[in-house]
Amino acid sequence: MRILLQNITILPMTSPKEIIEKGYVIIQDQVIVAVGPGDPPLGEYDRVIDGTNQLVMPGLINTHTHAAMTLLRSYADDLPLMEWLETKIWPMEDRLTGDDIYWGTMLAITEMIKSGTTTFTDMYFHMDRVAEAVEESGIRAVLSRGMIGIGPENQLALEQSRQFIQDWQGGAQGRITVMLGPHAPYTCPPDYLKQVLSLAQETGVGINIHVAETLDEMDTIKGDYGMSPVALLEKTGVFEVPVLAAHCVHVNDEDIAILKEYGVGVAHNPESNMKLASGIAPVPRMLEEGIAVGLGTDGASSNNDLDMLQETRTCALLHKVNSMNPTVLPAEQVLSMATSLGAKALHLEDQIGCLEPGYKADMILINLDQPHMTPRYDLIANLVYAGKASDVDTVIIDGNIVMENRQLVTIDEKKVLHQCREIARRLVQN
Amino acid sequence: MRILLQNITILPMTSPKEIIEKGYVIIQDQVIVAVGPGDPPLGEYDRVIDGTNQLVMPGLINTHTHAAMTLLRSYADDLPLMEWLETKIWPMEDRLTGDDIYWGTMLAITEMIKSGTTTFTDMYFHMDRVAEAVEESGIRAVLSRGMIGIGPENQLALEQSRQFIQDWQGGAQGRITVMLGPHAPYTCPPDYLKQVLSLAQETGVGINIHVAETLDEMDTIKGDYGMSPVALLEKTGVFEVPVLAAHCVHVNDEDIAILKEYGVGVAHNPESNMKLASGIAPVPRMLEEGIAVGLGTDGASSNNDLDMLQETRTCALLHKVNSMNPTVLPAEQVLSMATSLGAKALHLEDQIGCLEPGYKADMILINLDQPHMTPRYDLIANLVYAGKASDVDTVIIDGNIVMENRQLVTIDEKKVLHQCREIARRLVQN
Repeated sequence: MRILLQNITILPMTSPKEIIEKGYVIIQDQVIVAVGPGDPPLGEYDRVIDGTNQLVMPGLINTHTHAAMTLLRSYADDLPLMEWLETKIWPMEDRLTGDDIYWGTMLAITEMIKSGTTTFTDMYFHMDRVAEAVEESGIRAVLSRGMIGIGPENQLALEQSRQFIQDWQGGAQGRITVMLGPHAPYTCPPDYLKQVLSLAQETGVGINIHVAETLDEMDTIKGDYGMSPVALLEKTGVFEVPVLAAHCVHVNDEDIAILKEYGVGVAHNPESNMKLASGIAPVPRMLEEGIAVGLGTDGASSNNDLDMLQETRTCALLHKVNSMNPTVLPAEQVLSMATSLGAKALHLEDQIGCLEPGYKADMILINLDQPHMTPRYDLIANLVYAGKASDVDTVIIDGNIVMENRQLVTIDEKKVLHQCREIARRLVQN
Repeated sequence: MRILLQNITILPMTSPKEIIEKGYVIIQDQVIVAVGPGDPPLGEYDRVIDGTNQLVMPGLINTHTHAAMTLLRSYADDLPLMEWLETKIWPMEDRLTGDDIYWGTMLAITEMIKSGTTTFTDMYFHMDRVAEAVEESGIRAVLSRGMIGIGPENQLALEQSRQFIQDWQGGAQGRITVMLGPHAPYTCPPDYLKQVLSLAQETGVGINIHVAETLDEMDTIKGDYGMSPVALLEKTGVFEVPVLAAHCVHVNDEDIAILKEYGVGVAHNPESNMKLASGIAPVPRMLEEGIAVGLGTDGASSNNDLDMLQETRTCALLHKVNSMNPTVLPAEQVLSMATSLGAKALHLEDQIGCLEPGYKADMILINLDQPHMTPRYDLIANLVYAGKASDVDTVIIDGNIVMENRQLVTIDEKKVLHQCREIARRLVQN
């Protein structure tokens, strides 16, 4: 399959602010084979897309979510964290079946594709069903079976993770990357983390873990181990493999030095951290140090959407006011967090995150002919500060068109919405 | 003209969290004459709208913007405030003609209607042309001719404001309310403010003024007068008439007590305050004191859109993290800031802001059949935390349908976008 996009504005995200005003992109099967200004070379194409009034850019990369938590969207809001978890979220999660997870993930993928996300990072359970949804929908994903080290199922979680790696690493035509998912330092003690690390080293996969999300966690880890969560993970050896650390809200200079030294990727979730009042991560500082900080939405229960374009905007605005400096996190930098830098946080920077020959053909077409993006002095500022999820017109993942003119190709949207409404009805009745 | 909405979910915004799951709204000419659950009474209607899968709620109220600044959208971003104003915004504003203001305002109105705003509050210049755009488009507006007291045109500004009141107060079939617009305490010294106050008292209009937006302003006013901007305005007598105070970022307990005592309405602009790094207004505190705090976008040059639904979301998230308390500003409270409380901030709470018989027929229909609002446990949380501007399907203002199925009725959208692109081209060439 050979696809040509022509007469299109291109934001390759290979370097800040680079824009090709009118150019072409050629896709051969799963990969990008050419990107350039002006008219495309003569050739045969199975599909030609005219991109007049449209922008093409790398698909957005969500570096942290719990996809099937769409099923708990707006079920419990504006509550204190522990009350929210203990009385609302956990009891509901206990009721989720494998089928529920499949449909909840499908709902998340529906929403993500419609808002321009082409890769998502998931940590949840019934991960076989998540992988199934990824395979069917055509999206790309980094998947982890969440593991709790302090519970009775800690060994089962390791076994299932090993099996999940065997079954799905490189699955869905290479669109699935598996990581191990020990939940957090406060739910996975060092001995357990060492078991996880051994498995990671044996199987050659990375580790995805929540780190330093809340002040409660800081107190717990400090009380139990006399050090920060980041320092504890270093001491345990976890950073010897590629790691994606979600949140990193409460990290100090020494923690940041450790993250930098080991090349740990960070998933920053500004909207979830704001909504749960977890705090504000020192993102400008981490970026200055050259740490790969990507963006994530976290689960729909604490966001409550999966809109990555909105997440870039919130990220820029939050850190400007937090530092009382309007020059902090300019538009092109937050957009890189949602694309090229996000790819690096996932340790996939040689495959996705920019439009360059050899990269996977993951890209989104954005309709620029909108009142809220008029006039156009600065395309990137328009996109980040005024662009909307609904401006995403067409989505290509791994060389396949999965949405065109806002119509999903691989997903029966009506059926997904219907199924999820039925599941929600059952969940609240039980 | 008699319009019936039926089979529709109703969010009247008359009391927090009240929802009519399936009901009807009847509009007679400019006003709402009935709102109720179940089936409507028998009767003759010129137009019947079936609201299955839709929500009807009061139109959103933008309590602070500079509409024609859409022409400067994304022209200058991520810059220090004074550099932004002095080298970018002010030189461009100097070049704006009356025609530019008309088209820029039309672009703003296009965007506002498409995102569910039915009333906006404007302070700018060439206000006759703004009023013209309001009249033609069918939107409702509170308009002020911006006045600078320290410049050579300060008396001209007073005369033009007097004329503008004569020409447009109650204009556009009652949709226009005029306020006087002295820019700010640091640009309008007390003697000038007293002249403005006299004119306000003589003509019976209120005053719209920027107050305590930046730390620089605080230093200036403190240095010049030995008190806060709010205290200065009180001393000058400005609060003797109805006042709308925009921003109020840097207000202390005494300031808040003054605002409360005089019933001053406040326009909170979280996204602009974040983007310009002005600071975070003590909104939870002001609301606790019973102050009418509405929401505004500020101009598109510092936002960069005019999306009020997004503004409610940002407002809730910002104050949760700022107070490290997730229970602060729950969804229904920020939604009231964008509707009923916003109306009160504008001193128009007896006319707009809720769906109740006798109120102006300003309302929006929102399509709930969206992946990002599925499932539906909590309609208001879905709307505030996950709803999108693009979910607004139909907009009724003053009993007229101005948008239906996302198609504008009163505005030639293509022409507006074209004109504004041409103006932008000219502005950067000069």
